[in-house]
Amino acid sequence: MAGSSFGLLFRVTTAGESHGPANVVIVDGCPPGLPLDEGDLAPDLARRRPGQSKLTTQRKEPDAPEILSGVHEGRTTGTPIAVIVRSEDARSRDYAKIAELYRPGHADHSYDMKYGRRDPRGGGRASARETVSRVIAGAIAKKLLRAAAGVEVLGYVRQVGDVVAEVDPEAVTLAEVEATPARCPDPEAAARMIALIDEVRRDRDSIGGVAEVVARGVPAGLGEPVFDKLKAELGRALLSLPAVLGVEYGIGFGAATLRGSQNNDRYLPGDPTRLRTESNRHGGMLGGISTGMPIVLRAAVKPTSSIPRPQPTVNTRGEAAEIAVEGRHDPCLLPRFVPMGEAMVAITLADHWLRWRAGRPIE
Amino acid sequence: MAGSSFGLLFRVTTAGESHGPANVVIVDGCPPGLPLDEGDLAPDLARRRPGQSKLTTQRKEPDAPEILSGVHEGRTTGTPIAVIVRSEDARSRDYAKIAELYRPGHADHSYDMKYGRRDPRGGGRASARETVSRVIAGAIAKKLLRAAAGVEVLGYVRQVGDVVAEVDPEAVTLAEVEATPARCPDPEAAARMIALIDEVRRDRDSIGGVAEVVARGVPAGLGEPVFDKLKAELGRALLSLPAVLGVEYGIGFGAATLRGSQNNDRYLPGDPTRLRTESNRHGGMLGGISTGMPIVLRAAVKPTSSIPRPQPTVNTRGEAAEIAVEGRHDPCLLPRFVPMGEAMVAITLADHWLRWRAGRPIE
Amino acid sequence: MAGSSFGLLFRVTTAGESHGPANVVIVDGCPPGLPLDEGDLAPDLARRRPGQSKLTTQRKEPDAPEILSGVHEGRTTGTPIAVIVRSEDARSRDYAKIAELYRPGHADHSYDMKYGRRDPRGGGRASARETVSRVIAGAIAKKLLRAAAGVEVLGYVRQVGDVVAEVDPEAVTLAEVEATPARCPDPEAAARMIALIDEVRRDRDSIGGVAEVVARGVPAGLGEPVFDKLKAELGRALLSLPAVLGVEYGIGFGAATLRGSQNNDRYLPGDPTRLRTESNRHGGMLGGISTGMPIVLRAAVKPTSSIPRPQPTVNTRGEAAEIAVEGRHDPCLLPRFVPMGEAMVAITLADHWLRWRAGRPIE
Amino acid sequence: MAGSSFGLLFRVTTAGESHGPANVVIVDGCPPGLPLDEGDLAPDLARRRPGQSKLTTQRKEPDAPEILSGVHEGRTTGTPIAVIVRSEDARSRDYAKIAELYRPGHADHSYDMKYGRRDPRGGGRASARETVSRVIAGAIAKKLLRAAAGVEVLGYVRQVGDVVAEVDPEAVTLAEVEATPARCPDPEAAARMIALIDEVRRDRDSIGGVAEVVARGVPAGLGEPVFDKLKAELGRALLSLPAVLGVEYGIGFGAATLRGSQNNDRYLPGDPTRLRTESNRHGGMLGGISTGMPIVLRAAVKPTSSIPRPQPTVNTRGEAAEIAVEGRHDPCLLPRFVPMGEAMVAITLADHWLRWRAGRPIE
Repeated sequence: MAGSSFGLLFRVTTAGESHGPANVVIVDGCPPGLPLDEGDLAPDLARRRPGQSKLTTQRKEPDAPEILSGVHEGRTTGTPIAVIVRSEDARSRDYAKIAELYRPGHADHSYDMKYGRRDPRGGGRASARETVSRVIAGAIAKKLLRAAAGVEVLGYVRQVGDVVAEVDPEAVTLAEVEATPARCPDPEAAARMIALIDEVRRDRDSIGGVAEVVARGVPAGLGEPVFDKLKAELGRALLSLPAVLGVEYGIGFGAATLRGSQNNDRYLPGDPTRLRTESNRHGGMLGGISTGMPIVLRAAVKPTSSIPRPQPTVNTRGEAAEIAVEGRHDPCLLPRFVPMGEAMVAITLADHWLRWRAGRPIE
Repeated sequence: MAGSSFGLLFRVTTAGESHGPANVVIVDGCPPGLPLDEGDLAPDLARRRPGQSKLTTQRKEPDAPEILSGVHEGRTTGTPIAVIVRSEDARSRDYAKIAELYRPGHADHSYDMKYGRRDPRGGGRASARETVSRVIAGAIAKKLLRAAAGVEVLGYVRQVGDVVAEVDPEAVTLAEVEATPARCPDPEAAARMIALIDEVRRDRDSIGGVAEVVARGVPAGLGEPVFDKLKAELGRALLSLPAVLGVEYGIGFGAATLRGSQNNDRYLPGDPTRLRTESNRHGGMLGGISTGMPIVLRAAVKPTSSIPRPQPTVNTRGEAAEIAVEGRHDPCLLPRFVPMGEAMVAITLADHWLRWRAGRPIE
Repeated sequence: MAGSSFGLLFRVTTAGESHGPANVVIVDGCPPGLPLDEGDLAPDLARRRPGQSKLTTQRKEPDAPEILSGVHEGRTTGTPIAVIVRSEDARSRDYAKIAELYRPGHADHSYDMKYGRRDPRGGGRASARETVSRVIAGAIAKKLLRAAAGVEVLGYVRQVGDVVAEVDPEAVTLAEVEATPARCPDPEAAARMIALIDEVRRDRDSIGGVAEVVARGVPAGLGEPVFDKLKAELGRALLSLPAVLGVEYGIGFGAATLRGSQNNDRYLPGDPTRLRTESNRHGGMLGGISTGMPIVLRAAVKPTSSIPRPQPTVNTRGEAAEIAVEGRHDPCLLPRFVPMGEAMVAITLADHWLRWRAGRPIE
Repeated sequence: MAGSSFGLLFRVTTAGESHGPANVVIVDGCPPGLPLDEGDLAPDLARRRPGQSKLTTQRKEPDAPEILSGVHEGRTTGTPIAVIVRSEDARSRDYAKIAELYRPGHADHSYDMKYGRRDPRGGGRASARETVSRVIAGAIAKKLLRAAAGVEVLGYVRQVGDVVAEVDPEAVTLAEVEATPARCPDPEAAARMIALIDEVRRDRDSIGGVAEVVARGVPAGLGEPVFDKLKAELGRALLSLPAVLGVEYGIGFGAATLRGSQNNDRYLPGDPTRLRTESNRHGGMLGGISTGMPIVLRAAVKPTSSIPRPQPTVNTRGEAAEIAVEGRHDPCLLPRFVPMGEAMVAITLADHWLRWRAGRPIE
């Protein structure tokens, strides 16, 4: 029931299944005047695309987006922006043999329970295919944030298996992230991640990890207490992505073992409208409102559930069976997750920037 | 701007500040016919109340709720249920001396940046005082879930500092949780938690931890892909609570180091409408839809920011200052967090149960 | 299910029944900095109050509002504003004898069908009593509109029975409206309305009419195509009031018999950012967006359904019966409708002014 | 800002401009299991289509809809249904010469004021072209209502200029409506309407009218007090359509001159769960909740603003000018309005039927 829209003012609505003819996204609420064309959507789509490197699935999705509305003479008009992406490489025969099996770790069974029927080809709406719409909306949100508020959103892989990268969220650059197919800006860790992913791939298995997304230049004051706190909305945004099992910001779960005297960030004397803290354990949000410090979030991403090695499972009648998910699947979701995570953070910030704009004090 | 409502169909709207005359909550969307009176609200309010044990702040808040609408002759009528709780122990003098200081770890500065003005008494809307409204709405949601769907929601403290409890989410009982003021059902861990909290209190400091909330009996099929996935909505719900820095479900961040072959839960053969898995690393949700297995979530709660020991900070002009937050504060938020976490989980599930009801297949 | 909230950014949520202990309203989304106290709510409450003149019901409702949150030192803080109004004159004995009868023209039967149960005292949530919450929210909206955008909202009675007033929406003043208890600024028509209302009252009957509401100073550009056009939102706002059977703006139903060449308003040459039209058949909105001309709406209000003269009806078992609704009822709803209509128009405009603010073009 | 969605549970989102490449609609919240294919969309699209008779514009829009998602093997899956309609006959050269003129009665100026820029071709989003998306969503809503609740929605032309038809809303059939291009089921009135429309067309002018929409078989109990009353939502739905200047239900504005004793509908003794009234001045709704009697609404539709005869106006610099809107325009909007009105009524009822389903009493 009506779960395919996100945002109050910058409102993103998506439709489309894994193996259907197209994915569609409508972005309603982008202010007029923003320069925009299909070229703005291409870079993040390329980063999301399957088949981009040996680390990812070898499926081919050219992902040529077409803007159908909301743009006139190269600028947004303020009316809803619809974008369509046709599907081209829908080999649904790959899925025929598993239509009657419940894939472990997949939503096959929960979809059957919910809807009473299901398009078995590729997971339908539970597939990561739907994130093509999110990445498009995210590219628009990023452009709006950059042009209107000077905000930059950047993600990267922080951890794969037990390989943890060292990254400075305040300094990391897109070029550093994109330097390797691991999308990890720590070169030494990136090399180890690549080796690990290659190993699990050869082992017909998969591996999990953690992605980090930072938003820099966010003005203090975004977020709407008490239920639409910025931390809550960003958390929802990331948790709505496939395979995400947890979200934290700042020190996150690390706070559990700290004392208040260790955890509180110390304010540095200075202009009170631009206060900074010595450390950023608060991850750029206090009371659910942005503080002006970089917003830093992490998402735990599970290992791909689709693995080629045989697994015991049940069929749709509940009987014991065995499955080997052939298809073409990522041995590690993290590198392609990065643009998805950025997109959801950017969409959320765009929405809250508009809400912030509406709520400026009355003089 | 309009961030004080939660839920699409079971819609909770709250108002009220820390030191204002009252807190108010309106629950709109509770179906008619549910038996309800003030007595149903009392137990969880007592669990949330300050001053309930040595582990918590010694502030007194009698928290006598008055139902103003939506109930007739002991049953809900289907119209909105308004509940008011008057404040009684508002010692605002405690806060006079810190009105011009930015408390480290608090939202004082971000509120000033957002609103241009602020009620300095007790944190206003950023205080945990507002959760009295959530706990009331949660008690109604719990009663609805139990009566209409056989769902039970139960929380407990899983970790304080480095003390981690052993708990079986499928078997733990309310009596076990309430057996000690630590609200931790593992007696051995509870004793160590109590000792640790007492130590940090004497040390004029505070300590963080992790709470766990389990929902049992949730039917398969709740959650609305792709943005209103149940995991996303539950995550938002918990992250909207004060002091929560992270949320995970099932194996959570632990998935980062697992392989797919280790992480996928194995289906047990049986009635396909009541399938169970051997393990529950998926935390009761796949594809963002409930599977029928227990839903298990954890929230990271930071150490109380208000600590009596002196800390360096700045004043509202940005100049260096020192602060010792006197007032009466919890040395550890976890024991009182439990009913808050339960409330947010219950409200979210009630909302999604109603959405599920609306969306049943057409025969 | 969750029908007691109105507005996207200026969000009004109400609760309370006719004969319950109190009515409650939460206004979430009023920007900070607006001067506000209970005195701002009093004038419109007095205009809505029963017993204010011989033209209205003689029930007494002192309607003393108490602001419980969202205001600090005389100004709004940006957090939700809760206001409570206790009920005092709840003579529920008046209703005892009709609890088992379905009153003609009332919602008794439709409530029973919807909710399966019903508080029979005074119509519960279907009573005009709930509009006390709307009038409070409307007073806040009016103050915001005046202070922040220079907008003035004014209503008056345009027609009672076959007495139709002559009014110039651009020039009419509050003093003219309040000059007589008929709340009609045309003195000659007002006198005839008063005589007519007195006649139907003595005849133990009631009479319908038409109210007009004008909003002056509304900047061009408010309204959000295509579903949230300003005309659609204002229409919904007025139609949500009890007893309203129709809404029109500008020439309204009169357009049915006009030709395009007669109906189109002619633009007057001048500053294109402040264009005016010679006439205002478009009622201040084109394409669902405000044009800068006065917004003029009319609502058809039915004759009070509760009349003292005996009427045939059925009881709750569907058997023939007779009813004489005693209680104390308005012989004509129009005079007291005026502040309710103003309130709903003001709330809608406040919401759209905030949306307009959010959507300003990107430079 | 985000005004292109309608409905809480049956949520319709549209995008597309008059002369853009395509119109897109996403229907999110249609329950699974409903038989659906493109053929279900064709009949109402044909009724909405320009060029269908001499009474309408001669523009050609083949309007071939393509369902892109949400349907599998001929039935809805419960996931969002996206439908695209490519534009084919976009003669934008027709509009070149009027790009710098403000057309009287059009939204050219209000769009400029709102957005700061505007696609001048054919009115962009203010054109009736966008209703193609509404009619598609309406066809899905109609099918859902019929299959799941036995509800039938039917519209017709009630008045053109001073020609008023006699129609019995309880008995009128689709065949009667479609018998003439006037879409008026009263044959004598239809003939006079056709003659009148032909006359104004030859006169290079246009004419207004009134459409009526009836919904039969609606169960008692739909509508959500107090702001989402069914009358308010239906009124908003119809007022959101282009050219609608007023909406009424039941006796509507006629109530202004009635006494309560005349206006109250008398209940007929019988099964209390299926009560009927002798007359239907209440238009099937009391207290904003459906009563089980037919819902009857009327919409006032203005004469087409685009007329070929020259009119004085101003240009975008505010200077006096003259305009003759050539293009191809309907001399009377009413015949093509009928499927648009039906669509909005059906969408609203589908949404409220789902809300009703969610809110059934707890046993």
